[in-house]
Amino acid sequence: MSERGSVGIVERQHFTFAEASDPLQLDCGAALGPITLAYETYGTLNEDRSNAILLTHALSGDAHVAGFNSESEKKPGWWDTMVGPGKAFDTNRFFVLCSNVLGGCQGSTGPSSINPDTNTPYGLDFPIITIADMVRAQRELIRHLKIDKLLCVAGGSMGGMQTLEWITLYPDMMQSAMIIASTHRSGAQQIAFDAVGRNAIQADPQFNNGQYHDAEAPANGLAIARMLAHITYLSEEGMHGKFGRNLQDDDELQYGFKNEFTVESYLNYQGSQFVNRFDANTYMYVTKALDYFDISERYGSLDKAMEQVKCNVLVLSYSSDWLYPPAHSEQLVDALSRQEKDVTYCNIESSYGHDAFLLEVETMDAIVSGFLTHNDEALDTRADAKNALPEQTRTSTNYIVQGNERRIDYELILEHIEANSRVLDIGCGDGYLLCHLSAEKNVQGVGLELDEKQVIQAIQNGVSVIQADIDDGLGALPDQCFDYITFTRTLQMVEQPHEVLKEMLRVGKKCIVTFPNFGYWLARTIMFFTGKSPTTKNLPFNWYESPNRHYFSIYDFRALCEGQGIKIEAEIPLNSKGKVSLMPNARAEDAIYIISAK
Amino acid sequence: MSERGSVGIVERQHFTFAEASDPLQLDCGAALGPITLAYETYGTLNEDRSNAILLTHALSGDAHVAGFNSESEKKPGWWDTMVGPGKAFDTNRFFVLCSNVLGGCQGSTGPSSINPDTNTPYGLDFPIITIADMVRAQRELIRHLKIDKLLCVAGGSMGGMQTLEWITLYPDMMQSAMIIASTHRSGAQQIAFDAVGRNAIQADPQFNNGQYHDAEAPANGLAIARMLAHITYLSEEGMHGKFGRNLQDDDELQYGFKNEFTVESYLNYQGSQFVNRFDANTYMYVTKALDYFDISERYGSLDKAMEQVKCNVLVLSYSSDWLYPPAHSEQLVDALSRQEKDVTYCNIESSYGHDAFLLEVETMDAIVSGFLTHNDEALDTRADAKNALPEQTRTSTNYIVQGNERRIDYELILEHIEANSRVLDIGCGDGYLLCHLSAEKNVQGVGLELDEKQVIQAIQNGVSVIQADIDDGLGALPDQCFDYITFTRTLQMVEQPHEVLKEMLRVGKKCIVTFPNFGYWLARTIMFFTGKSPTTKNLPFNWYESPNRHYFSIYDFRALCEGQGIKIEAEIPLNSKGKVSLMPNARAEDAIYIISAK
Repeated sequence: MSERGSVGIVERQHFTFAEASDPLQLDCGAALGPITLAYETYGTLNEDRSNAILLTHALSGDAHVAGFNSESEKKPGWWDTMVGPGKAFDTNRFFVLCSNVLGGCQGSTGPSSINPDTNTPYGLDFPIITIADMVRAQRELIRHLKIDKLLCVAGGSMGGMQTLEWITLYPDMMQSAMIIASTHRSGAQQIAFDAVGRNAIQADPQFNNGQYHDAEAPANGLAIARMLAHITYLSEEGMHGKFGRNLQDDDELQYGFKNEFTVESYLNYQGSQFVNRFDANTYMYVTKALDYFDISERYGSLDKAMEQVKCNVLVLSYSSDWLYPPAHSEQLVDALSRQEKDVTYCNIESSYGHDAFLLEVETMDAIVSGFLTHNDEALDTRADAKNALPEQTRTSTNYIVQGNERRIDYELILEHIEANSRVLDIGCGDGYLLCHLSAEKNVQGVGLELDEKQVIQAIQNGVSVIQADIDDGLGALPDQCFDYITFTRTLQMVEQPHEVLKEMLRVGKKCIVTFPNFGYWLARTIMFFTGKSPTTKNLPFNWYESPNRHYFSIYDFRALCEGQGIKIEAEIPLNSKGKVSLMPNARAEDAIYIISAK
Repeated sequence: MSERGSVGIVERQHFTFAEASDPLQLDCGAALGPITLAYETYGTLNEDRSNAILLTHALSGDAHVAGFNSESEKKPGWWDTMVGPGKAFDTNRFFVLCSNVLGGCQGSTGPSSINPDTNTPYGLDFPIITIADMVRAQRELIRHLKIDKLLCVAGGSMGGMQTLEWITLYPDMMQSAMIIASTHRSGAQQIAFDAVGRNAIQADPQFNNGQYHDAEAPANGLAIARMLAHITYLSEEGMHGKFGRNLQDDDELQYGFKNEFTVESYLNYQGSQFVNRFDANTYMYVTKALDYFDISERYGSLDKAMEQVKCNVLVLSYSSDWLYPPAHSEQLVDALSRQEKDVTYCNIESSYGHDAFLLEVETMDAIVSGFLTHNDEALDTRADAKNALPEQTRTSTNYIVQGNERRIDYELILEHIEANSRVLDIGCGDGYLLCHLSAEKNVQGVGLELDEKQVIQAIQNGVSVIQADIDDGLGALPDQCFDYITFTRTLQMVEQPHEVLKEMLRVGKKCIVTFPNFGYWLARTIMFFTGKSPTTKNLPFNWYESPNRHYFSIYDFRALCEGQGIKIEAEIPLNSKGKVSLMPNARAEDAIYIISAK
């Protein structure tokens, strides 16, 4: 990775369109024009205009993503940690841009802009804006910049909603997308919080029904709305870790109503700072846009909406985000999976709450840069997958080494999988098998993996991977949507092997399962003669440390298949030298099965 | 259970104390008097005044717990589901009372009462009240009613905080206590929400620094505070399940700022209703009392605070309560456990959020009535434990039957445990073994159990039980705090047996462990000759359905003890006929070990 740097001094630019003769048609039925969007760009657009990444901002964000607008500015843009030379959105490689949303208050047309019909600020006469309207306006900007296809659209929180509108409204206009700490629809709790915030603004006498431009702004109301919202951006655990019950000024309780606890002063500070940089009318309009957001609405269902998608999608959530909980992201990922879209998902462990998307820089950097590298159209992704493999295995399909171990099981799996098929690898680890399958057999592969570190590694290896626990089932996936499901050396570790097999056979046409054979003579002999739990090469653990939950033999597995109506298409008993044909239950250390539903 | 009924028409009563000559000393340093408390009572105080239960109410509650104050009242008191003839707080047996808190607005002295010095309402001249102050006032009422010792003090939310103050300030004054959906201290997030609510009230011009009594009350501000708080009483999941994105009046989006989603209308209704029955000044004072609440403050640490406790304590939390998350209750339970107090804990699965303590009536009924029955001082609890046992096992210590199975292991455990000792039973189920130990050996027993249904059953059997996952360790418990730890038929199911044993030996002086012996000849023989995973009487499961995660023999266990420096005090190999002395590893189906740290 090159050295990380700053984009330096950047200038806000403006683009005006939708002049009165050709206004923008909004979801609410009104037509609006002219419209100005404020935007910033970082890096250089390449000759074929194929390296552009559009970032979309959150409720209180703006076009100023990275760098400084002047020498005297103290804080850089809101995602400076992620955008710049050598950073995740690497401005040495990519042309990154962001515009202030329609309805905003940082240079784009919004409710406090001048209404050309009256020459006074719109106030509440401004039409209601939706997230889709914001995106329609952004599209005009992209057209203006003569970009036909974006390399990526990416955003967190409300930015994720805009990204969802982008990939469904204009599915041909991007190579990939990132939906971060977001949701496919605002739920009742989110609407409720927004409503309380708007109530606080409207209850402020200075709000004056949105016409406060000649007087004092409704600072009290806006500050209360911001304080409330700010709580929802943190987590209970994170907040208590940061502030606890610490007192601001004194060692002793004051028994009065002034701000006493540090957390109160912090919130008050957040409220008062916000009032200086944000407009109350914009807060009203943008929270309303949030409330209206439900990507399924235009299409009838979430699945129908996701059916539109053509690009590769990365979905990220954060374990302690309770504003847009991981469950929302999982619903989105499930719908994309059901529609057989290329989706990657990671739920990042964090105590930062919703704000984690601005703070978990190291993890995000690994994921975002990995994802972008493998979605860069300029690269041959097949060659790339092959490059991810260790040198000795790149040239031969017949000899696969992982670490220091020859993976005969992988070699045999590779033999049995047809080219160009769709493969789900459960417990995919860092995506090693899928890289091979992609490089050698041109399969369309998806991995399932529970461990966050492995998921990140798999993303960096260019594998589409979904973080999930196989013991929770494959409920989201439709019947028979994969040609093959591979499940290597893990069946013995799941809680309910028979349930997992049932699910696999529902979702995959053929399933390839491997496990250590507990019927292996050595294991049996140790057990019988010593009366002790055996440890062997394939069962290397002390009994009390073993991650294995079930011990079964080739005979046991055959009996299970028989009992559950599972057809055994092929049985490949293995030992360290290769296939075993004679007395497999006693002589095989491992077994590979290719099974299907009867 | 007798038929459940209503307490019918009840009258609010008043008690005035702390006349000007003898005012109440408050935590803030001020002296307050006279003080009036409004209260209600249900049921009849018995002759020796030993059946009184004090209920303590939450932020927006009052003294009116059950029944109706008039024929025309439409809604009964706030916990009518739990208080009445045949209900959990059975008014046929108990004398139940509740008073409106000091600082309240439903008949008790509060900030909108008349200040006798000025003959005008106190407003913000009212002194700051703490939860402890509320409890000091309640104690005067209890004294006035000539009750020396309460059978129970119980409350949810802020009521739980009052209960915590009661059991630490006046530890001799109650037999038992229930702390429900509460916390041992307000954390940063709770303080933050309260602060935003107070900000909204103070920002209302009608608040007029608390002197609004001659004009309109600050309804807007109070309604906003209430709406916000109300969100924190529900759960994201529960709220979305109830309201979803449903629209109030129309089928189509209105694209305007009026209340449009059902959840907005609901919140507005909650806000406007609240304003009719609650006082803004009381809201200011009571939320401040919440913020100041930290039971450890007076004592230096949570453990020091819990050291004061002398009664039996029941702690209940709710899985989806994010205002006072289960983790807070667990910290409290851990501290009580460390202080070797009699504590029972259940985290009730619910989607109702914080409000679950008012709504999960069926589960609460089972737990509360079970807990109260076994804490009724009039009962001989030892006899009672014995009564919980099936008839055939009540008369003999030598023959224990559970279901249809003779539990020789229990009989031997009973033999080996000394009378009057402290026993922790891990994986206690419905408390069967502990009932026996209590009845026969007068032990002070505590159970650990993960399954909610079993926990409830154990409570009904009069066992002190803590809901916990043994795989999370016994971290809260101090070294060597139990004479014995029993762990029957579960070691093979935990993830890390050696870690669990280490923890057990840290906490218990002696540990009694039982497990199925995988070295049993039948298991070994089946495995060796058939090459299949064995099923036997003690290993009855199909390999794929087994809850067992580890298979080990007497030899394996001995080796583990040897390797980990564990002293085997006794080894009792067992088969269905009794002890096995010859060739135990081959001939025993089960094994009992008494072990200690070397």
